[in-house]
Amino acid sequence: MKDIQSQPDSRRINIKKVGVKDISYPITVLDKAKTVQHTVARVNMYVNLPHQFKGTHMSRFVEILNQFHGSINLQSFHSVLDAMKNRLQAEEAHMEIEFPFFLKQNDCSPAMAGISEYSCKMHGSLDKIDDLILTVQVPISSPSAIQNNEGLPKSLGRWGTAEVSLRLSHFIWIEDLIQTVENITCHDRTWHDEMDSEIEHDSLSVEDMTKQLSKKIASHPHISWFSVTVENFSKNYSTFATLEWPESGTSHRHWPTEQQ
Amino acid sequence: MKDIQSQPDSRRINIKKVGVKDISYPITVLDKAKTVQHTVARVNMYVNLPHQFKGTHMSRFVEILNQFHGSINLQSFHSVLDAMKNRLQAEEAHMEIEFPFFLKQNDCSPAMAGISEYSCKMHGSLDKIDDLILTVQVPISSPSAIQNNEGLPKSLGRWGTAEVSLRLSHFIWIEDLIQTVENITCHDRTWHDEMDSEIEHDSLSVEDMTKQLSKKIASHPHISWFSVTVENFSKNYSTFATLEWPESGTSHRHWPTEQQ
Amino acid sequence: MKDIQSQPDSRRINIKKVGVKDISYPITVLDKAKTVQHTVARVNMYVNLPHQFKGTHMSRFVEILNQFHGSINLQSFHSVLDAMKNRLQAEEAHMEIEFPFFLKQNDCSPAMAGISEYSCKMHGSLDKIDDLILTVQVPISSPSAIQNNEGLPKSLGRWGTAEVSLRLSHFIWIEDLIQTVENITCHDRTWHDEMDSEIEHDSLSVEDMTKQLSKKIASHPHISWFSVTVENFSKNYSTFATLEWPESGTSHRHWPTEQQ
Amino acid sequence: MKDIQSQPDSRRINIKKVGVKDISYPITVLDKAKTVQHTVARVNMYVNLPHQFKGTHMSRFVEILNQFHGSINLQSFHSVLDAMKNRLQAEEAHMEIEFPFFLKQNDCSPAMAGISEYSCKMHGSLDKIDDLILTVQVPISSPSAIQNNEGLPKSLGRWGTAEVSLRLSHFIWIEDLIQTVENITCHDRTWHDEMDSEIEHDSLSVEDMTKQLSKKIASHPHISWFSVTVENFSKNYSTFATLEWPESGTSHRHWPTEQQ
Repeated sequence: MKDIQSQPDSRRINIKKVGVKDISYPITVLDKAKTVQHTVARVNMYVNLPHQFKGTHMSRFVEILNQFHGSINLQSFHSVLDAMKNRLQAEEAHMEIEFPFFLKQNDCSPAMAGISEYSCKMHGSLDKIDDLILTVQVPISSPSAIQNNEGLPKSLGRWGTAEVSLRLSHFIWIEDLIQTVENITCHDRTWHDEMDSEIEHDSLSVEDMTKQLSKKIASHPHISWFSVTVENFSKNYSTFATLEWPESGTSHRHWPTEQQ
Repeated sequence: MKDIQSQPDSRRINIKKVGVKDISYPITVLDKAKTVQHTVARVNMYVNLPHQFKGTHMSRFVEILNQFHGSINLQSFHSVLDAMKNRLQAEEAHMEIEFPFFLKQNDCSPAMAGISEYSCKMHGSLDKIDDLILTVQVPISSPSAIQNNEGLPKSLGRWGTAEVSLRLSHFIWIEDLIQTVENITCHDRTWHDEMDSEIEHDSLSVEDMTKQLSKKIASHPHISWFSVTVENFSKNYSTFATLEWPESGTSHRHWPTEQQ
Repeated sequence: MKDIQSQPDSRRINIKKVGVKDISYPITVLDKAKTVQHTVARVNMYVNLPHQFKGTHMSRFVEILNQFHGSINLQSFHSVLDAMKNRLQAEEAHMEIEFPFFLKQNDCSPAMAGISEYSCKMHGSLDKIDDLILTVQVPISSPSAIQNNEGLPKSLGRWGTAEVSLRLSHFIWIEDLIQTVENITCHDRTWHDEMDSEIEHDSLSVEDMTKQLSKKIASHPHISWFSVTVENFSKNYSTFATLEWPESGTSHRHWPTEQQ
Repeated sequence: MKDIQSQPDSRRINIKKVGVKDISYPITVLDKAKTVQHTVARVNMYVNLPHQFKGTHMSRFVEILNQFHGSINLQSFHSVLDAMKNRLQAEEAHMEIEFPFFLKQNDCSPAMAGISEYSCKMHGSLDKIDDLILTVQVPISSPSAIQNNEGLPKSLGRWGTAEVSLRLSHFIWIEDLIQTVENITCHDRTWHDEMDSEIEHDSLSVEDMTKQLSKKIASHPHISWFSVTVENFSKNYSTFATLEWPESGTSHRHWPTEQQ
């Protein structure tokens, strides 16, 4: 690979992202039931770096994180991003956090007393306007027609996952989003009763479950964009389907109604 | 979450992606030195699904993969994508493969006889036109001024990684891309000699190393787009910088030269 | 933590293990059908270090690995260990390799044309005598009573895994061990036909499947020790059972027969 | 693999381990500074199953975990194990928990304001006697002679890790164990000052650092057994050394003193 152009001047080029990643950090999340839930997040924080700036002070990212220690949540995201933008003199600021969120005993897993874990992500951006995408991954069990000797359905394994990402115009509880998804995906509750119906068998395909979930989420008034991915585990690989709405490149529009 | 809109009709909505993922598959890659290198890839294959189609036959993805068994490489990517598009009647076809690529003993790691491993990715797309992005991740050692009792530099650990993604207008050997990167990142070869110079100390920042790498890659005649990310491991997190060129949203243009 | 003993002399203490780990290395494995299978292994190599030796030359481990490049298998394990023991003047030598092993289309996964992946491990030791433990992990699908529109059973997800470790007195093909396990664990072949029988429902517990597998393996003439672990995935955790035979601490003895 | 023995009777064979694994669970750990630290653990719980028992009730493991929710620590381990042994009528009970433990700003990482993460494990067993092994993994930075433009040492990457496992006769704070390890491993504090001395260069080998750490830990009055593993990352693999004391198979004895 030889240089055949005149020497480029990298001083005039923008650094698109500069920051810190994979910080493990204890955080608290507001929680419908318990007010405050303690968990551990993996955090990425970065800004753009206009070409006239020579470097950035990496330690400032963690200093900002420390200032908000104990109160990272949907509400405080804007304040953290604002502090990043100001202290680092950046045009854009980004923060991504990923954490396990726990729900006490829900109807969807009656076989085992205990708490369920959901992987959550928040990706916030601030340039001129705020943007926040919330992602929740909901595990899906294999449907079970078999009961163990305590009268509870036996585990037939992991069917897959449903991952929903949203842009919100109003606050929404993570618990409510999980319940919306589990109303569709929860085999033990929904599918089990109707195991013989033609419709229910159909709903086992990733395409159909993606569409059912999308239809449900599109009907929510406070969601301006979403993406749904349903993944079905086979022994050695997965099958999956993804639906995004409105599709990128198209203007915001109504989900087609049956009347149309 | 209540339905407040009239019932949406999901039958009129496109599935953006449907396919298989995380298939572990033995492949061969063409290799400058040995002609054929055997390795094991993780493969994702997916298509879009226009709304008039009701479902897709997942088994066909793996059937196509089997047809090309033993010859997945930069050259055969187009044929695989073409087969996917035709057999699944899709408008777009995508394949992503990720695999370890091995190089025998290179100058950049003299301390240990042996072979070096590089993580590679290829992401090919076909709608009306072909698109292929090649990604190589190059590990970077910590600079070492200390020799062990065999006269070789002692390992002072893992400094980080450089990841380069490219769109190519002509074929390029993975080996040549790795060497281009290691000409910049290889401490034992480059930095060691000039450990005391002001310039070399500077080059230890992720921003500067990202710019140096970008400048080098921008000067290559057959690269129409690239992204460079340099990551520096600290004890509990990483710092990183990313540069993309041309930046998305801008038209293709020349890297600014020093004359400008 | 204060020192309250007289100063200990670490020069008189043995290093139990010293070596290299997590080397990614392309290897070939002998294969019943194709003679040679190319795959990529993760390799650990280590020796003990008697207290009179001050250090070891780490680069020699990789030099030895390079000597045997292309022919790591059950047969060559002894030679590699012997070379390690000699060149590093050690009393004991160990090598662990872990790799994906591929089988073309087997009866246990009719739903998808393709190849199945099994995670394999070999752990060889040499002090005065040779020791080799072979481990194979076999994925288990969820049982499926539902057919898709191509007449094949639909994936109902991942039920779990069966992991079998063996000490062998004679050579055994990895393929034969996998088939022995799948004769018990393969739902699509075995369970499906008898889905209603009391016995088959019982066999869904990890304890029972562990016992069935152990009974089968104990009947093989060339196995002097084994361990079986069956794991069943639930949504957020796993249940598992492990049986080892003969149990550590007991002398070698016959598996109890029904006549006893 | 044919059956050539008379049919073995698996009903007379013990299940060695049966239980649940990979439960993700929020826990609190007692902490020298803050009294209570919230973190998220991965939990395994299992018992042995004497051959006269036909099965075990997996849901009871999680019920027991729920009873102690919010107070898993070195002190409560015995109570959890006791509850497992009683409720499951087992001869032996085991619990393993693994969690990130956080320390605010310590001297060993002055470059970045913030908190440090340490991976901790506790493995408790109860048959006739209690046994508890505490494991802490301490990350080690690469030594840095270079300062950035804020006068702090620049990151030169990850040198490796030191992992210490202990059997304790008295309670010990995790913080104190971490500090004991970092007194040896912390380059920025210890090594940096004496970068030129012959001794310090020597201490960069995994064997020597393992011995230095072992000598320090052996001098602690409340430790009846320990294992130390020091791992040094190279670009594509690691080198490591492990020392265990007293070595398994030997009776408890004093670490050899220099007077001997």
